[in-house]
Amino acid sequence: MKIVVLGGDGFCGWPTALHLSAQGHDVCIVDNLSRRKIDVELEVESLTPISPLTDRVAAWKRVSGKDISVKFIDVAHQYTDLLNLLHSYQPDALVHFAEQRAAPYSMKSASHKRYTVDNNLNATHNVLAAIVESGLDIHVVHLGTMGVYGYGTAGMVIPEGYLTVQVDAGVNGLVEQEILYPANPGSIYHMTKTQDQLFFAYYAKNDHLRITDLHQGIVWGTQTEETRLDEALINRFDYDGDYGTVLNRFLMQAAIGYPLTVHGTGGQTRAFIHIQDTVKCIELAVTNPPERGDRVMILNQMTETRRVRDLAQMIADKTGCEIDRIPNPRKEADENELQVENKQFLQLGLNPTTLDAGLMEEVQEIAKKYAHRCDKRRIPCASYWTSDNKDKAS
Amino acid sequence: MKIVVLGGDGFCGWPTALHLSAQGHDVCIVDNLSRRKIDVELEVESLTPISPLTDRVAAWKRVSGKDISVKFIDVAHQYTDLLNLLHSYQPDALVHFAEQRAAPYSMKSASHKRYTVDNNLNATHNVLAAIVESGLDIHVVHLGTMGVYGYGTAGMVIPEGYLTVQVDAGVNGLVEQEILYPANPGSIYHMTKTQDQLFFAYYAKNDHLRITDLHQGIVWGTQTEETRLDEALINRFDYDGDYGTVLNRFLMQAAIGYPLTVHGTGGQTRAFIHIQDTVKCIELAVTNPPERGDRVMILNQMTETRRVRDLAQMIADKTGCEIDRIPNPRKEADENELQVENKQFLQLGLNPTTLDAGLMEEVQEIAKKYAHRCDKRRIPCASYWTSDNKDKAS
Repeated sequence: MKIVVLGGDGFCGWPTALHLSAQGHDVCIVDNLSRRKIDVELEVESLTPISPLTDRVAAWKRVSGKDISVKFIDVAHQYTDLLNLLHSYQPDALVHFAEQRAAPYSMKSASHKRYTVDNNLNATHNVLAAIVESGLDIHVVHLGTMGVYGYGTAGMVIPEGYLTVQVDAGVNGLVEQEILYPANPGSIYHMTKTQDQLFFAYYAKNDHLRITDLHQGIVWGTQTEETRLDEALINRFDYDGDYGTVLNRFLMQAAIGYPLTVHGTGGQTRAFIHIQDTVKCIELAVTNPPERGDRVMILNQMTETRRVRDLAQMIADKTGCEIDRIPNPRKEADENELQVENKQFLQLGLNPTTLDAGLMEEVQEIAKKYAHRCDKRRIPCASYWTSDNKDKAS
Repeated sequence: MKIVVLGGDGFCGWPTALHLSAQGHDVCIVDNLSRRKIDVELEVESLTPISPLTDRVAAWKRVSGKDISVKFIDVAHQYTDLLNLLHSYQPDALVHFAEQRAAPYSMKSASHKRYTVDNNLNATHNVLAAIVESGLDIHVVHLGTMGVYGYGTAGMVIPEGYLTVQVDAGVNGLVEQEILYPANPGSIYHMTKTQDQLFFAYYAKNDHLRITDLHQGIVWGTQTEETRLDEALINRFDYDGDYGTVLNRFLMQAAIGYPLTVHGTGGQTRAFIHIQDTVKCIELAVTNPPERGDRVMILNQMTETRRVRDLAQMIADKTGCEIDRIPNPRKEADENELQVENKQFLQLGLNPTTLDAGLMEEVQEIAKKYAHRCDKRRIPCASYWTSDNKDKAS
């Protein structure tokens, strides 16, 4: 298949592009390098030494013999370039990672909130409008988040995207209706993903676009089968307070003997997936599109749920490092349970990498190896959800 | 109270600004004149001869002795100007009409879809982010639409914004949860309003902003007590295929003896409100804010529901004009029923203008008086929801 990967230079996008290419697909990466520019703004770097994008694709050609083409387009603001690419490349599928994806970054200031809203919503809408304008039948695979569901406090069982509810139909009594699972986002970033869902539902209904929305858990791990093949292919590893996801931050903290920073009681339950499973899921999604005219296909892309404090304890037990409880910068319940349905990917053949099996490999292979590149000043989270939380922490 | 009216030069915004001023409030209009510029683009004009904005406020000063200040700001793209205005003017409330509000216009082309999404979503988000950044306690009153609910086909009873559903909470069994009424928008324009709802829910939850969202029906009529006071205060009247709402188009067609254009079977039930009631509702909303920390206050701002063909028949009976059935350019069910809850405004004291009582006055006072200004070529709707509908019509 011919596949465009928007945001193909990022943490999930790059290993996805390689995996799709390794599976024999023809891949075109579109990126505006925004993630690398945000590193410049935040004065941080990936713990792993990532190569420039053109060096990355040159290394892939050397290692695999396969070509990946690259287009530098700002999808949110260069609509005509995006449309022209669809016309000239004629893709079968488009994988959409071209969104600002860090909740803490989206909360730093009014300017960061506005950037996240403008970038994410215009990027998603431009993709959909361009596909309709092109007249091509291009399957959109979008990376969403488990965070669209909100995190329930009553042990909610999270289905895959939809919920059947009863509504009052007057003389016809109560009738059943299937709806998008009610949204309850926890940050500006998560909010944009709930708004994306409304774009998708509308374009699937009005224009019969084929759309798959993947509600992904927190990704951990760094390398995949393909990124391991050459050091110039190495994937990024973020450990800073804005972009580092909870588990990768713990791993790096363990590797350098920095106490594991648990926010609040650490009673928040989160859903996780290894980056190797992410790329497999995306290939499964790309090769199993919905029919034209179907509703949006929604899959939960996660493999395990854990409480944050249990994760910290697991890593402390394995490495001997300490745990440090600090005030939670987020506005959320201290404790929550979560049960997540993920039948669809398991039925498609996904065989997950487990935390128990993969954690220590990650500490050794990545966190310890590159610990000398760590800037410890960047570990604390300096973004607060409201000024109340800031006051509480200071 | 000190009140900013965003979009205060538009069809609803202008009479609202006058009504709030007449009630003794201090009013500042913010507008970028986008609605007048779209008239230029579409090569149409308001049937009524509207004055330039600065002439309008000068006339109001002459007639009433009251000042309305004016700021020319593009709320979606001039964030700093908006923030500076909040700091200097220190409003108690902000009424937000600064969105592209015509469903057919939002469907004309990819460019019109993109303009509507970019303008409406960035405008709403800039308002909310600016209020948080200002640190001021400003009540936001937003003009939403009945169209966020979608139009049910089973005689759905539409509550005021919220629906209680049951969700599976695992070991805790089924638990009740209150959610935003499930969205099912019928156009890009309506979709942006469903996305606005998610902005409001998030900012009310995270930042405790006071927000009132008015789900308005289709507005009919032209003049209010204040716009009647001087011809330079006259409100706009749109009859073209994009901006003319169904009832105003019928009235104008009746006035010039053009057959009433009913789309499809005309079996679509719509909710209506007279412009005089709109301005009263907004004043009631502004002076009855929710508490800080409350959920978004949602009110249905409509007074009657009617089937489109029944409206056409009512006008045909009163005026003797003919009815012409044409293919529906929209993608929607031919027939639907609708029962809408509007208790809250009635409890606040609204005493509605009825269609039966007001229709003929409107035909005489506006449509016949200005019929010589009508460009009949602009009556048909030339926007199609999908290319299927375009093919059907041609």
